[in-house]
Amino acid sequence: MRVDLNSDLGESFGRYKLGLDEEVMKYITSANVACGWHAGDPLVMRKTVRLAKENDVQVGAHPGYPDLMGFGRRYMKLTPEEARNYILYQVGALYAFAKAEGLELQHVKPHGALYNAMVKEEDLARAVIEGILDFDKDLILVTLSNSRVADIAEEMGLKVAHEVFADRAYNPDGTLVPRGRPGAVIEDKEEIAERVISMVKDGGIRAINGEWVDLKVDTICVHGDNPKAVEITSYIRKVLEEEGVKIVPMKEFIR
Amino acid sequence: MRVDLNSDLGESFGRYKLGLDEEVMKYITSANVACGWHAGDPLVMRKTVRLAKENDVQVGAHPGYPDLMGFGRRYMKLTPEEARNYILYQVGALYAFAKAEGLELQHVKPHGALYNAMVKEEDLARAVIEGILDFDKDLILVTLSNSRVADIAEEMGLKVAHEVFADRAYNPDGTLVPRGRPGAVIEDKEEIAERVISMVKDGGIRAINGEWVDLKVDTICVHGDNPKAVEITSYIRKVLEEEGVKIVPMKEFIR
Amino acid sequence: MRVDLNSDLGESFGRYKLGLDEEVMKYITSANVACGWHAGDPLVMRKTVRLAKENDVQVGAHPGYPDLMGFGRRYMKLTPEEARNYILYQVGALYAFAKAEGLELQHVKPHGALYNAMVKEEDLARAVIEGILDFDKDLILVTLSNSRVADIAEEMGLKVAHEVFADRAYNPDGTLVPRGRPGAVIEDKEEIAERVISMVKDGGIRAINGEWVDLKVDTICVHGDNPKAVEITSYIRKVLEEEGVKIVPMKEFIR
Amino acid sequence: MRVDLNSDLGESFGRYKLGLDEEVMKYITSANVACGWHAGDPLVMRKTVRLAKENDVQVGAHPGYPDLMGFGRRYMKLTPEEARNYILYQVGALYAFAKAEGLELQHVKPHGALYNAMVKEEDLARAVIEGILDFDKDLILVTLSNSRVADIAEEMGLKVAHEVFADRAYNPDGTLVPRGRPGAVIEDKEEIAERVISMVKDGGIRAINGEWVDLKVDTICVHGDNPKAVEITSYIRKVLEEEGVKIVPMKEFIR
Repeated sequence: MRVDLNSDLGESFGRYKLGLDEEVMKYITSANVACGWHAGDPLVMRKTVRLAKENDVQVGAHPGYPDLMGFGRRYMKLTPEEARNYILYQVGALYAFAKAEGLELQHVKPHGALYNAMVKEEDLARAVIEGILDFDKDLILVTLSNSRVADIAEEMGLKVAHEVFADRAYNPDGTLVPRGRPGAVIEDKEEIAERVISMVKDGGIRAINGEWVDLKVDTICVHGDNPKAVEITSYIRKVLEEEGVKIVPMKEFIR
Repeated sequence: MRVDLNSDLGESFGRYKLGLDEEVMKYITSANVACGWHAGDPLVMRKTVRLAKENDVQVGAHPGYPDLMGFGRRYMKLTPEEARNYILYQVGALYAFAKAEGLELQHVKPHGALYNAMVKEEDLARAVIEGILDFDKDLILVTLSNSRVADIAEEMGLKVAHEVFADRAYNPDGTLVPRGRPGAVIEDKEEIAERVISMVKDGGIRAINGEWVDLKVDTICVHGDNPKAVEITSYIRKVLEEEGVKIVPMKEFIR
Repeated sequence: MRVDLNSDLGESFGRYKLGLDEEVMKYITSANVACGWHAGDPLVMRKTVRLAKENDVQVGAHPGYPDLMGFGRRYMKLTPEEARNYILYQVGALYAFAKAEGLELQHVKPHGALYNAMVKEEDLARAVIEGILDFDKDLILVTLSNSRVADIAEEMGLKVAHEVFADRAYNPDGTLVPRGRPGAVIEDKEEIAERVISMVKDGGIRAINGEWVDLKVDTICVHGDNPKAVEITSYIRKVLEEEGVKIVPMKEFIR
Repeated sequence: MRVDLNSDLGESFGRYKLGLDEEVMKYITSANVACGWHAGDPLVMRKTVRLAKENDVQVGAHPGYPDLMGFGRRYMKLTPEEARNYILYQVGALYAFAKAEGLELQHVKPHGALYNAMVKEEDLARAVIEGILDFDKDLILVTLSNSRVADIAEEMGLKVAHEVFADRAYNPDGTLVPRGRPGAVIEDKEEIAERVISMVKDGGIRAINGEWVDLKVDTICVHGDNPKAVEITSYIRKVLEEEGVKIVPMKEFIR
């Protein structure tokens, strides 16, 4: 049994610092690096890619909506042509930093509201996938476990990593309970660890209403926003390893 | 005798249209494509690269300051680290569109105030060159003919295209007379053609004060902003060909 | 009988020019001036306000989404708090230019996708209205004729100008047929003029399916994007005047 | 003897938080509120103005270069027309939030590189002053103590607050030793307090080379970036009050 641990990094911007990247980088296998649209800037991208290299962590692009003020968390209505080329732009920008540091891109994980909108809008999902395929057919798309997006990507010839969220409650249909709803975010370290074990070893979890949800687990999204998040990430890794789960980059097992 | 003709293209943005790209693309051999910072957006970049491909024109990145409002024409004081990574970001972004269309990048030509600042600030020039080398050591830097930047680039191992301006007056030291000064911009088609012939065949031109300026000519900057500019561009090409000068992409003769 | 003619102006940005503002300003009574978020910049705002002053045209703010790349025409999901303060920011910015030129603001007309979203999302409509009330209770909100937004604004104590569109087809419920649908935009000058007369004198128009739609007409939106649009605007004014309709700024009859 | 204490606040942006505004607001009399160009956004502006109101602190605009990525700390070459209208835009935007909260603007303090550039470029200084006069002739310009800018502003009819910096070393000509030079920033609380007393009571201070520099002191710039800065600010206030100096908003004594 093996799983990847991914985290959204490189979200600082100019004088603004966000995230304990140096800390969380020690525990993950894949870094989703912001590309300057919803967060990140060229100096931050360079530094984050270098940090990933030092920690032997795989890098992927984390493209988002053109909305720094909203941190890419607000839905925007894009045409498929816009989405496809916005992805291409951001993936290319990050690719340059990876190349400068002698690394290859492993994956692409759309950010925030764009990630969520892909689950609901098939046209948008197809456009994002085309943008990735335009650039490199060997990249892996990280998307919501068991979602329609995953099926579409595979049909279109793109590799997919099914992603689960360690600290988020699920609806019975496998979507996430939106932040802001009661119980949407789980904060207890032990409970998070139990959920992660259930997802990885039992292939699913109880939804917020108690129903069972099947989940395919290639990669687990963890956080490094604050000291507590880093501690939870470190704990998840420890518990998984104790259960005999290998923590390896997604590229080692996704084809 | 051979020379390249280059033009700044892909400068539209969102609903804003600029330049007769379809027209001028017929006469040039190298297109400098804006990368979304001082002009251009992902849709425009895609379209421009595609148009270059259809016209068998080589593409290069045209990175600029992060200043859409000033169109990259206003000096900004950057640190070398900022400049290096701003170049990398923009070159990578354009690379993605070239790759999507099956093309390779030929060159990088910094835009506007950044182009000019490199001639004056050696630190800045070195940083821009490092950014290009970080990405791909085979790219060609397009810079002011016989400038210190060209020497530095060659010392640092980067190929250089010496660029002259068809419609601009020169100072005796080989720099351009700034726009806005009397006589800075030449508008007469015949005069422009004569100057171009002088530059290419005699290796230089009379400066604004009458002194002779030696110029090395690998590529001539031409314009496509308006119907008259396109007509001049077409005329320059015709006159050069009549004089037996071959119009070929810079990559065919710069090594 | 009296009506106001309004047009969206000041939509140029930096080096990018849009609209024949000097021309259309001769025929209208109210100018909706872009505030730098979806279009416009401080130089353009100053120039546009000055032009309005010279033509004795009333000025109003034309705030939009923070989306220059999409020209404010793409829906974005804002919280009410965001919408309220985004309006306040943009209205304040334009107010400064009006004050500098010795003018008062007459009205606020939200732009593009924001205008449309207000008709569908009551929370958003209330937030925009609160933003306007925060600044000045005497401003007039320009909104879709007979829409729920108009009712809400009046309930909340804001003056309202019911707006109709000279060149757009209507659905039977009084909403506009979206651009892109067949027949959505009317281009024939005579037909546009007839429709305007019907709206102003008969208080309504035939919807795209032939049903009658009642419309309240305080102000008619006209265009100045191109020479034909200016010609149509000039023609609408002429025809209205021939029919005995007075063309006056909305502030003269809305209270 | 009386002096004002000012601080740069409202520098958060979107998800990015900067500064302990709630804390430092307790000790100052004037808040310089960022206007969304180099820092700040409409939600932050609203919140900051409200916080100032609750703490009975006067608000002023803190306009900067259009450079969020560089936090307004990088020089940009602006034309006088650009500078004048950029100021007007930002002052108007902040005015809207002050008006919404029932406050009046007291002052304008240009930010960072713009503040410094005004000291060196008289054209720029004049343009900024014109922008302020365009909006409201009763606003106070906060500028470097005993600088040429102060003289120009007074000649042009604008009120001026001479500003000193509590924690910065001075050159013999009254300019600040640039950050990054050894000794440029003073960190010891006692030393800062002594310097402040010297400035306020003795009308000057020893420059970095030991020469005496005369300083006029209307307002002292203090910081709230981190807990130590807040502590220093609180200490400066305490020491000044112990020395019998009244801490009052600049509008109470500048005319």
